[in-house]
Amino acid sequence: MLLSKLCCERTKEAPGDAKIKSHILLARAGFIKQVANGIYSMTMPCQKMSQKIQKIIREEMDANDGQEVLFPVVMPRELWEQSGRYTSIGNEMVRFKDRSNHDMLLGMTHEEAAVHMANHIISSYTQLPMMIYQIQTKFRDEARSRGGLIRVREFTMKDAYSFHATKEDLEDYYMKMHKAYQNIFRRIGLKRFIDVKSDSGMMGGNIAHEFMLLTEVGEDSIVLCNHCDYRANMEVATSVIDKPEFADAELTLVDTGADKTIEEVAKRLGVDAKQTAKAVVFAVKGDQEKVVIAFVRGDLEVNEAKLKKVIKMDVAAYEGGETSTVVCGNIGPKDLDKSITVVVDKSLQGMKGMVVGANKEGFHYTGFNFDRDIDVKDYYDISKVQAGDKCPICGGDLRIENGIEIGNIFQLGTKYSASMNMTVTGADGQAFNPIMGCYGIGVGRAIASIAQESNDDNGLILPISVAPWQVHICVLRQDDPVVAEKANKLYKDLEANKVDVLFDDRNCGAGIKFNDADLMGMPIRVVISPKSLQNNEIEITIRKTKESYKVSYDNALSEINTLIAKLEEEYK
Amino acid sequence: MLLSKLCCERTKEAPGDAKIKSHILLARAGFIKQVANGIYSMTMPCQKMSQKIQKIIREEMDANDGQEVLFPVVMPRELWEQSGRYTSIGNEMVRFKDRSNHDMLLGMTHEEAAVHMANHIISSYTQLPMMIYQIQTKFRDEARSRGGLIRVREFTMKDAYSFHATKEDLEDYYMKMHKAYQNIFRRIGLKRFIDVKSDSGMMGGNIAHEFMLLTEVGEDSIVLCNHCDYRANMEVATSVIDKPEFADAELTLVDTGADKTIEEVAKRLGVDAKQTAKAVVFAVKGDQEKVVIAFVRGDLEVNEAKLKKVIKMDVAAYEGGETSTVVCGNIGPKDLDKSITVVVDKSLQGMKGMVVGANKEGFHYTGFNFDRDIDVKDYYDISKVQAGDKCPICGGDLRIENGIEIGNIFQLGTKYSASMNMTVTGADGQAFNPIMGCYGIGVGRAIASIAQESNDDNGLILPISVAPWQVHICVLRQDDPVVAEKANKLYKDLEANKVDVLFDDRNCGAGIKFNDADLMGMPIRVVISPKSLQNNEIEITIRKTKESYKVSYDNALSEINTLIAKLEEEYK
Repeated sequence: MLLSKLCCERTKEAPGDAKIKSHILLARAGFIKQVANGIYSMTMPCQKMSQKIQKIIREEMDANDGQEVLFPVVMPRELWEQSGRYTSIGNEMVRFKDRSNHDMLLGMTHEEAAVHMANHIISSYTQLPMMIYQIQTKFRDEARSRGGLIRVREFTMKDAYSFHATKEDLEDYYMKMHKAYQNIFRRIGLKRFIDVKSDSGMMGGNIAHEFMLLTEVGEDSIVLCNHCDYRANMEVATSVIDKPEFADAELTLVDTGADKTIEEVAKRLGVDAKQTAKAVVFAVKGDQEKVVIAFVRGDLEVNEAKLKKVIKMDVAAYEGGETSTVVCGNIGPKDLDKSITVVVDKSLQGMKGMVVGANKEGFHYTGFNFDRDIDVKDYYDISKVQAGDKCPICGGDLRIENGIEIGNIFQLGTKYSASMNMTVTGADGQAFNPIMGCYGIGVGRAIASIAQESNDDNGLILPISVAPWQVHICVLRQDDPVVAEKANKLYKDLEANKVDVLFDDRNCGAGIKFNDADLMGMPIRVVISPKSLQNNEIEITIRKTKESYKVSYDNALSEINTLIAKLEEEYK
Repeated sequence: MLLSKLCCERTKEAPGDAKIKSHILLARAGFIKQVANGIYSMTMPCQKMSQKIQKIIREEMDANDGQEVLFPVVMPRELWEQSGRYTSIGNEMVRFKDRSNHDMLLGMTHEEAAVHMANHIISSYTQLPMMIYQIQTKFRDEARSRGGLIRVREFTMKDAYSFHATKEDLEDYYMKMHKAYQNIFRRIGLKRFIDVKSDSGMMGGNIAHEFMLLTEVGEDSIVLCNHCDYRANMEVATSVIDKPEFADAELTLVDTGADKTIEEVAKRLGVDAKQTAKAVVFAVKGDQEKVVIAFVRGDLEVNEAKLKKVIKMDVAAYEGGETSTVVCGNIGPKDLDKSITVVVDKSLQGMKGMVVGANKEGFHYTGFNFDRDIDVKDYYDISKVQAGDKCPICGGDLRIENGIEIGNIFQLGTKYSASMNMTVTGADGQAFNPIMGCYGIGVGRAIASIAQESNDDNGLILPISVAPWQVHICVLRQDDPVVAEKANKLYKDLEANKVDVLFDDRNCGAGIKFNDADLMGMPIRVVISPKSLQNNEIEITIRKTKESYKVSYDNALSEINTLIAKLEEEYK
């Protein structure tokens, strides 16, 4: 490709809304162009990178007997009503009426379409396991699209769906896909990626893993053990916390005046926050009459995702109201209105001598004993892990890092096959609902992740496995016919040898060319100048290591091929 | 691929709405599965076929310096308002509001997105010509989706956009793309395709060609010359018609009673339909007050597409009304209300002694002389070509055939670059709007066209250039371990040699296997049976020619490779 003809503009400045490295660099290198909020066009370099990533994804899916299919972007309401998701998913799903007034939607994921396709085709357990996948455009109407390709509304995604006769078979296959995902991320050049246990969210099912790129700009919090390989998304992470013993004492009502927060009350009573209980009030989503109060130890925070799982309902902030019996700032576990759903964290189990709200304006109790003063049926894990907590596996110290989700895998169970009446005949002649798994990777986010992880002050540093071009030729003094001819010959020779080459054939200064080459980030830069040609040499520079050396012009082709093979080794 | 594991169901019966061969066979072979009206999922064989077609398209685009990019499916209203198409396109374009209440749309074509990308990037004429293309999902809310993949609402399309400094450069490039399209259709195995001049419709611009597959199930009418290579879509086709001379006579008002139609009036007056003028009444679309009357010779029909071009407005059927001055059945060119737009066909130019309506209930004129009795400023070509008319190029006989549009190319001019303020600096330092071309091919329709053209009573006959698998192995007596092992070894050997193989490893009868192989239509069938293996032989059958022969099992690999190379020759 001739750079002079490439439809891709490099700029010094990034768009005003570009705050993170990947967004800044992909925009400045001209890889992406914003069309609307969270919606981008991709120019040729970005699309080529996308296709190289897709090829690697396909290879890993096909190696696990995946069958590539294509589901529609636009689907009818009826299909999604079968699973119940037409109503359970909120306004992140685009719905519209077609010209015949039928309710249609834009697919964010394709479990329903996968079951629709496989249903009837899979009739016998002998056909299982079976996995179908697609690489297709999806639209998710994100409220907060941000970070360039990190969180967009329209994206290209690989989504795969597997069907199994037994839970064990799903688990086997799930582990294979887990491995395939590790292969994909390694092959596209990501380094700091990990898999973490996660919440299955709107997908349903129980076991799920997210693959995360650890990066300070990530929006997800990930809990990691410094000693063993325990790691989990904050939403599902657990820990062992230090439980101090406080002296048992008589339950005493004390005047705490206008002090409401844990900090204020602990200070007034001269106790540590660990000796208090914190109450957080929620309402069931859509029904402010149904109050939910979560109690955690004063030094901890409530983990909403865990709370939702316990009460099996979604929650929203509690807005209070004139008839409310909730005395905010003085809420305690004792004598709460019977209509309120109360969930108590395991951090409070067995605790004595505690400070808790008295459900009376301006008063708290001291000497509260959870075993003695109330009757808690079950204690649950509803608190957020904090840095320094102990690992639930090995007892080591836990730390918290930020991450970007780059892929996810789910053991769905029979949520979709059962709701959509997909049955298969088993070895015993009995019909059963096949057990499903699903597996997603966003291609655009993979591009952004690579850009986020692999760059320097001058621009992108693209792994050779996914770089749009392996070699970037800069010819200095394009106006010198001898130099131009030699450069052009090498360009043609490399292309004839199936090397992907970008040839900066512009008649402009070396500084501009080198800046563009650094910004765009191709792995190998070749400089051909009148000066080096005097010794019949060209200069090769490796973008990543900045290593630079001269080779004879006559050996250029074989030298470059050798270097490509060497660089590719890392991503095998 | 093992057929026993393939997510694709062959059936005896086609869906009830399948009326044409391609729909019936693609559905029966399990290639497609309907999700909603005009919306299909593609199973693996269909998706593989789609990808092989896409590869051929990419090769031809890249050979013409095309740069593959990706535009979004969902676009904002503002982008389409710049070109004026947000309002000019009707409800075939899906519009919806996103969660922030912004007007969004689903792209049917991407001229606006292409200009949005190229604008600013192309700043100098030296960067021209430049062509960008994408292969992406599109949605067009067709009122009458039909014929399986022939006319769908959601489809995968390759759309390309070129930018030029001069009209001559566009014309040069247009001819290259014309050639590329011929290459594509030949390489994917279509035979009866032709290019025809066409109307540029909603795309704007003047010169346009459609590529048509000639087939009786086609919805388009194409005019072809039996002697030269003149051919045109009915919408723009012209012809030379035989013009009889009738004796000049006095203009006479005659009572024609209740006779209204050309047939009735001609019969009553004892003249040929050619001696009459037919009036067809329209109204400007959206305004029934604006009446348009088109006059053509009595034996001809009005071509609405041509009429619209003449009056530069869209028309609808005229509904009449109480205040109408139009005397339907007696309309003539003389003394019409001045508010009416009148367009007279060239077939009436210079005609004498004609029968025309008198604009008076129950009366016609005879002896009407168009040069003498009215003042027609210009005569236009607004009539439909009829079979037997003479070719406008060579005078040969014209015939009319049905066709399916399989691709189109347009010289757009500056419609989009001008309306979207895209300017480029020319050699003279002056800014100009680049001249554009655009070029589209629907991938799904290509699949349907191949299926429509290439089949027999037993099923599909797929060209080896696009068949999902080149070889279909049928093993008879899969339960015989020796046979199964030999079949499996050949399957593995072929795959190791990068041959695409479908292996029917099911434990079922030969009849079922042969029927499925014929239905699915892979080019080469290999049968391995206990009987043939007794002579250490396998049987090869060419799907297309039904030619069948035995080869030694030991030479199978090289024999099959030779046959593949031979069959591929046809599509080079």
